[in-house]
Amino acid sequence: MSDVEREVHSVAERAKEAAADLAPLSRAVKDEALLAVADTLVREAESIVEANAEDVARARENGESEAVVDRLTLDVKRVDAIADAVRDIVELPDPVGEVVRGKSLPNGLELRQVRVPLGVIGMIYEGRPNVTVDAAVLCLKSGNAALLRGSSSAYSSNTRIVEVIRGALEKTGVPVDAVQLIPGSGREAAQALMRARGLVDVLIPRGGANLIQTVVRESTVPVIETGDGNCHVYIDEAADLDKALAVAVNSKTQRMSVCNTAETLLVHAAVADRFLPDALKSLRELDVTVHGDDRVQGHDDAVVAATEDDWGTEYLSADLAVKVVDSLDDALAHIRRYSTSHTEAIVTDSQTAARRFVAHVDSAAVMVNASTRFTDGGEFGFGAEIGISTQKLHARGPMGLPEMTSTKYVVTGDGHVR
Amino acid sequence: MSDVEREVHSVAERAKEAAADLAPLSRAVKDEALLAVADTLVREAESIVEANAEDVARARENGESEAVVDRLTLDVKRVDAIADAVRDIVELPDPVGEVVRGKSLPNGLELRQVRVPLGVIGMIYEGRPNVTVDAAVLCLKSGNAALLRGSSSAYSSNTRIVEVIRGALEKTGVPVDAVQLIPGSGREAAQALMRARGLVDVLIPRGGANLIQTVVRESTVPVIETGDGNCHVYIDEAADLDKALAVAVNSKTQRMSVCNTAETLLVHAAVADRFLPDALKSLRELDVTVHGDDRVQGHDDAVVAATEDDWGTEYLSADLAVKVVDSLDDALAHIRRYSTSHTEAIVTDSQTAARRFVAHVDSAAVMVNASTRFTDGGEFGFGAEIGISTQKLHARGPMGLPEMTSTKYVVTGDGHVR
Repeated sequence: MSDVEREVHSVAERAKEAAADLAPLSRAVKDEALLAVADTLVREAESIVEANAEDVARARENGESEAVVDRLTLDVKRVDAIADAVRDIVELPDPVGEVVRGKSLPNGLELRQVRVPLGVIGMIYEGRPNVTVDAAVLCLKSGNAALLRGSSSAYSSNTRIVEVIRGALEKTGVPVDAVQLIPGSGREAAQALMRARGLVDVLIPRGGANLIQTVVRESTVPVIETGDGNCHVYIDEAADLDKALAVAVNSKTQRMSVCNTAETLLVHAAVADRFLPDALKSLRELDVTVHGDDRVQGHDDAVVAATEDDWGTEYLSADLAVKVVDSLDDALAHIRRYSTSHTEAIVTDSQTAARRFVAHVDSAAVMVNASTRFTDGGEFGFGAEIGISTQKLHARGPMGLPEMTSTKYVVTGDGHVR
Repeated sequence: MSDVEREVHSVAERAKEAAADLAPLSRAVKDEALLAVADTLVREAESIVEANAEDVARARENGESEAVVDRLTLDVKRVDAIADAVRDIVELPDPVGEVVRGKSLPNGLELRQVRVPLGVIGMIYEGRPNVTVDAAVLCLKSGNAALLRGSSSAYSSNTRIVEVIRGALEKTGVPVDAVQLIPGSGREAAQALMRARGLVDVLIPRGGANLIQTVVRESTVPVIETGDGNCHVYIDEAADLDKALAVAVNSKTQRMSVCNTAETLLVHAAVADRFLPDALKSLRELDVTVHGDDRVQGHDDAVVAATEDDWGTEYLSADLAVKVVDSLDDALAHIRRYSTSHTEAIVTDSQTAARRFVAHVDSAAVMVNASTRFTDGGEFGFGAEIGISTQKLHARGPMGLPEMTSTKYVVTGDGHVR
């Protein structure tokens, strides 16, 4: 075992101990600690901004774009907003202790299935330093210890933020080691985290497809895959074409860089001539490049010829693949072949078509006459979201606090034997 | 890719296609197919017994014990009993289509979270050929395709049983490829199954700790760990000692070869002098070898000195580790260190002690004044059980039909956009 591995293991062991102490804590104790975190973030905002300035300077030296620098940058106002988000999470119900099912067995035993924390959650993420607070707080609220591994580009910010959170916890009933940053910013530390089976209960990667695939491939710790979204909108022959236009354009353009944005539009041949001219015009006006098959290209000179690659690409940009299909079944076959099983939408007024689409599309979310952009913990009313799972085990779709728990059976008798 | 890998992949691809066709089938279609399976098993009982005779002969040639040979042997009566078990599963409710939660969102979108099959379930198991039928039928009932990899010692029996099941499915609405045996009995085929990520949705190993650890280590497909049980019974100072005796003896001796049998008995020092003499006597009369610490050894000459290894061993035999502890917290610390998190029991009349034990023991099942032997899908009223999960993700404790499903969100609107 290398020094780095040893260090990560020792951090993970402390997290495991903290998780055991954290699990039985009441909501009141946890909420009080989270409020202390919010207050301390506000009080320490300037020191966080100072640490953040180092990351920002480094990003500028490395020639990062203004957009990247802006995403990274914290000011006092942004830190205040982060603290407000913590207070919002305090308001959410605590999933721990919920009785998922319960009954008396014929022999008089009382059986209850009760929500309990998962234990130690490892988060590997890219992106803005606010994720550090968000992940830590969602873990604490659901009774889990958090092992955080953020982007190396935000290392100074994340280090200071975690110091501040731990400082706040010191005066509360929540163990300080319930929130820890994986030491160092090198690749070896991330790998050691991925292999800390038995110490870490689950890893949740958040970021681009590359990051997620690396974590899936290299981890021996169970992983929840999130956010890989090659989402489809299918315009059925029985669609109301006004609704179809609204849903298609909104699914692609309302926010293009996120996993629930649409990347392919499938149009039934029977409505293609009536639907495509308007749709292609609207998309062009919004600066979307359409990658179309032969039957789409005929409708607009600006359409780029689609290649096989286009059907499988999650653009996350102002690009959309568009294809004309001859039937609902052809649309289903296309989706089955290329979808990442995140979100697919049908626009139709036909009950038969909607029912068939819902039954045959095997995705985390299936939309009927609604934008793919609605697949979101906030939109679903969960109040918070740690990610959107695109796998079938444990949790699928937007993951709120209940999805960050496991259960245990509590069985009460009076000396019962078999 | 070797020939074996190619063959396993082609089997898994057919399973994936079958799973897609199977998922939307109604309960009526699935139940009809399962009844056809039961009828055909009865009709083909003799050919199954004939194939089984080859396995039995091979086992005798290999000098297997009579107990092993008996577990392997099928006769017409046993096949009939297997068919009856299939009919019992037909009676169980279909988990697929259950609305787990549903509501109308403020914007009028209707949100439903609906149970759907997992897809393709790979089963790797040791033991009796009846597991082949059991696993196939539980998978079909929950809408999943089954990829079965049984013990090589039962290869002829399993091959014939799967032929019979597939023959029965041919005349039904369930695709034949929904039940397949992994070809060949070599190790390479099992490994190919473990690495068929993207084709197989989950692997459920059933068997000894070695098998399960191998699958966990070598799989890239998500695994549900089952059945590793180093279970504890703790006799609290506030225990009713008659109930304590009954629960301790039953937990160890009611059936010793199964995962929910107790392997360690922890006794509070305050009641050790009153409890241990009777307990040790009862255990001796039932031919249980007690491996005790210093304070246990004093009570009975037949007690063997326990070593460090004893605390961590899942005996699955007429052995029991026994230790005197000075407090509930010492018992909790011992359990935290050595338990496999399957089932732990406390015997106590103290509400305070019971509450603390339940809160601090992190196991799939926690028993209060009841035998560890109750951790069982049948006892819990689930009607069927594919295994007992000892992990925290997806399913924990006895897994019935609902645990063999995932969910998807179905969102219905009227042209809704963000």
